[in-house]
Amino acid sequence: MTPTIPQETEDPVSGEQPADSTRDRILQVASQIFAVKGYHGAGVSELGEAAGLQRGALYYHIGSKEDLLFDLCKRHVDEALTRGRAAVASTADPREQLRLLVHAHLNTLAERRSDVIVAEHEMRSLTGDRSVRLRALRREYQSLFEEVFERGVAAGVFRTAHPIDVMGVLGLLNYTYVWLDPKGPTSVDEIAERLVVLIVDGMAAH
Amino acid sequence: MTPTIPQETEDPVSGEQPADSTRDRILQVASQIFAVKGYHGAGVSELGEAAGLQRGALYYHIGSKEDLLFDLCKRHVDEALTRGRAAVASTADPREQLRLLVHAHLNTLAERRSDVIVAEHEMRSLTGDRSVRLRALRREYQSLFEEVFERGVAAGVFRTAHPIDVMGVLGLLNYTYVWLDPKGPTSVDEIAERLVVLIVDGMAAH
Repeated sequence: MTPTIPQETEDPVSGEQPADSTRDRILQVASQIFAVKGYHGAGVSELGEAAGLQRGALYYHIGSKEDLLFDLCKRHVDEALTRGRAAVASTADPREQLRLLVHAHLNTLAERRSDVIVAEHEMRSLTGDRSVRLRALRREYQSLFEEVFERGVAAGVFRTAHPIDVMGVLGLLNYTYVWLDPKGPTSVDEIAERLVVLIVDGMAAH
Repeated sequence: MTPTIPQETEDPVSGEQPADSTRDRILQVASQIFAVKGYHGAGVSELGEAAGLQRGALYYHIGSKEDLLFDLCKRHVDEALTRGRAAVASTADPREQLRLLVHAHLNTLAERRSDVIVAEHEMRSLTGDRSVRLRALRREYQSLFEEVFERGVAAGVFRTAHPIDVMGVLGLLNYTYVWLDPKGPTSVDEIAERLVVLIVDGMAAH
């Protein structure tokens, strides 16, 4: 048997095409417009105009408006997952894993502001299989945290890995998108460090 | 001098009229439609249709679409403030004040789901003086928490009342609107009780 090169197949749900600069430009433009006007408030013609594309050309690149929303949400969770997994893989200490997860999370939010707003506000506008797939990805991200807390409970450093507590921690981190200002007087990593203390103490075994 | 009865004056920003059942019905309908389609995605004609009103009659009651959004956001913060103040007033123990604030917060979110979604997602669509006034109200709500933590620091039970920590706590509570299910297997008060432990331990003096 000779090794085979995996075929580029079109994604059945998102109609994803191989990455190209036009597509990236559309995603960038859509992220900003959806963040301001909302998914339902932004027309396809407006997206095309901002990207400098005719309607037909736009649809060729995006498939549908909902495909575009899905791709934006997915791009955001993919990025968070990649960084989160790297954080967890870099140490065996659950407390340090948590610390690195928090830094990774906040830095992702700070760098991808419009993607985050779109994902947070418009996720629920996804339907059918796209909604199912996005939820699965978000669930996977949550599992990263759950596993860290479970290892911490086993090691005697955390008191809980209960889903409600983990969702509380994730909510604390997610909600920072509302007030986190990368250009503010306190750096993203300083903010992360404060929140690490709050979370580690809040979840600590006594 | 004889005492004067304060005149009913029209609110210069929201164009608020004295409460009436038509107005309440419009707010209810708008809350649900804005929550699903977003503020920019919902047309005034759609709101009128859902409320059973002609365009002219609708505008008579709401002033403008942005007035309506402001009133929805304000109604939500007013409710949270009223409950929060009652919670703080009911005891002098900062830890108990925090516990009651958390219960009040989660119960408000659970009971006013569409208002919360609208407030969280569309607050930033408010402009000018409406935006300023809403921020001031939200700031006032945050102060309730800050003051509890400050009293707790003075009493030696909390280690911090730092704005970033307080915003972390508020974010944890606010973000529950995404996953809090009043009909789920765990009651809102049980969830609140778990989160109280997380927050109290996370903010505790050692």
